[in-house]
Amino acid sequence: MQFSIQILGCGSALPTSLRGSSSQVVNVHSKPLLLDCGEGTQLRLRQHKIRMQQIQHVFISHLHGDHFFGLVGLLSSLHLLGRKKPLNIHAPKALKKIIEDQFEVSGTILQYEVNFISLNMGKLDLLIDEENYQVYSFPLEHTVPTWGFLFKEKPFRPKLKKSFINKQRPNIEAITKIINGGDFVNEKGEVFKHKNITTPPRNSVSYAYCSDTKYTESIIEYIEGVDVLYHEASFGNDLKKQAALRAHSTAEQAAIIAEKANVAQLVLGHFSARYKDVSPLLDEAKAIFPNTIAAEDGLKLQLS
Amino acid sequence: MQFSIQILGCGSALPTSLRGSSSQVVNVHSKPLLLDCGEGTQLRLRQHKIRMQQIQHVFISHLHGDHFFGLVGLLSSLHLLGRKKPLNIHAPKALKKIIEDQFEVSGTILQYEVNFISLNMGKLDLLIDEENYQVYSFPLEHTVPTWGFLFKEKPFRPKLKKSFINKQRPNIEAITKIINGGDFVNEKGEVFKHKNITTPPRNSVSYAYCSDTKYTESIIEYIEGVDVLYHEASFGNDLKKQAALRAHSTAEQAAIIAEKANVAQLVLGHFSARYKDVSPLLDEAKAIFPNTIAAEDGLKLQLS
Repeated sequence: MQFSIQILGCGSALPTSLRGSSSQVVNVHSKPLLLDCGEGTQLRLRQHKIRMQQIQHVFISHLHGDHFFGLVGLLSSLHLLGRKKPLNIHAPKALKKIIEDQFEVSGTILQYEVNFISLNMGKLDLLIDEENYQVYSFPLEHTVPTWGFLFKEKPFRPKLKKSFINKQRPNIEAITKIINGGDFVNEKGEVFKHKNITTPPRNSVSYAYCSDTKYTESIIEYIEGVDVLYHEASFGNDLKKQAALRAHSTAEQAAIIAEKANVAQLVLGHFSARYKDVSPLLDEAKAIFPNTIAAEDGLKLQLS
Repeated sequence: MQFSIQILGCGSALPTSLRGSSSQVVNVHSKPLLLDCGEGTQLRLRQHKIRMQQIQHVFISHLHGDHFFGLVGLLSSLHLLGRKKPLNIHAPKALKKIIEDQFEVSGTILQYEVNFISLNMGKLDLLIDEENYQVYSFPLEHTVPTWGFLFKEKPFRPKLKKSFINKQRPNIEAITKIINGGDFVNEKGEVFKHKNITTPPRNSVSYAYCSDTKYTESIIEYIEGVDVLYHEASFGNDLKKQAALRAHSTAEQAAIIAEKANVAQLVLGHFSARYKDVSPLLDEAKAIFPNTIAAEDGLKLQLS
């Protein structure tokens, strides 16, 4: 239960009662991270009983309204609910003024600090480096500057078997050597092989969020081998031209990226409101990349 | 079915799943008018099957977020849904830049005209003068400049009885005279009394919206005798001091205003999120002004 994703909204520009505007929560080691914040996100956080005040980082992919119109309301509610802890917002530079102007005009002075951290164009950029995980941004290709985000657990170390500890009582120095892959030699000169005295660590997991973007192979280097890739699939093959015109992707294109990037699972999302049933899009993607699912509002994926 | 009100959200600053941010639709002679536009209003319009593209006028009472954070999303969706008709927004002056900046940063150029009409401080101000109704703004007293709105049907004229028309065949000139209160004299010199040849008109109705405001008798002159008064009641008597501190009203104060203004019915709303059950507030108001009801999201009131 250390790494999960919950989709709060997987609609595109036009929110409907079926699918809300873009928003997700990535839970990494009990820390909820908010990913985009379309209109109504605060209500969906409440609905799914996500502890809003625990959120320390918000990531905004780009400044199309369906990805940020809910942020000012969320910030306001955190304030009204008594927040004192700072909040970090990783977002395109222009968002700071947009938010601050709205509070200024309403005469609101937030009782907590909001740190706006501007996203940098260019390559993979390390945004957060915590004990157990890291978060990176990387460039997507859309009609306005847009970023994807990569969430990666750090590699885990093996654990020493209890029976070994109880019998051999290794000191700190020896323990450090073992968890870094070494063997153990006791005072009698007996050698204990690393693999016999440890439990292998679980694999660390990773998640990449790519919304909104046209089909571009330039992102493959950033998302290669992730456990779960959320890739926008605004349209089906019926509207491939429209996808290209609007710098969006089709479900099939998302699947081609997933295949080329050798990810474990693909989640399609950011569906155009015209698709009430997205199973045709899912079929188009599965024909290329079988381990694909379609996002829906409320869906929770447990990665570890 | 010519004048109705539908509450879309009757919560205060903190929206919850029980009560959304402030928003209402006033339907006057098949014209939906939108009154405040808190976050999530566009979804509630869809939910209640209100034809969004028919809205020609939006009224924003003041620039606290729970009354306008949903406007930019609504404007965006109207655009995406193909609107071409202009939209008039009657609002405090500063709103124009707030909205325009958000569209600029997202690279959005609306395909329809938005006319921002600044509300004027001072007394009763006529905003709309249509064939059958008028809309006025008037000042409330809150922590930022805030306006109430008054919706009034114009007086109706009596209708000529069919039997009279068929027998006497009055010409246009005679008809005009009769519907303005006159009698009819035919070629033989016979006099037909006005009251005998007409059906009396239905009473014209009126609605006043007062949210947000502290208790102030200054508004009585504007709302006197309305059929329905929506008055904020953010708090109960348990938090009377808090109401005063924040320039809000208690339910009892709303009832005192209703009583003094001699209105027919009072609707309490804009409830603080702390009151899951507002029946204590309703009781406090009813003790002063019995014909009081509590708003709830989705409630529809038919005035005529």
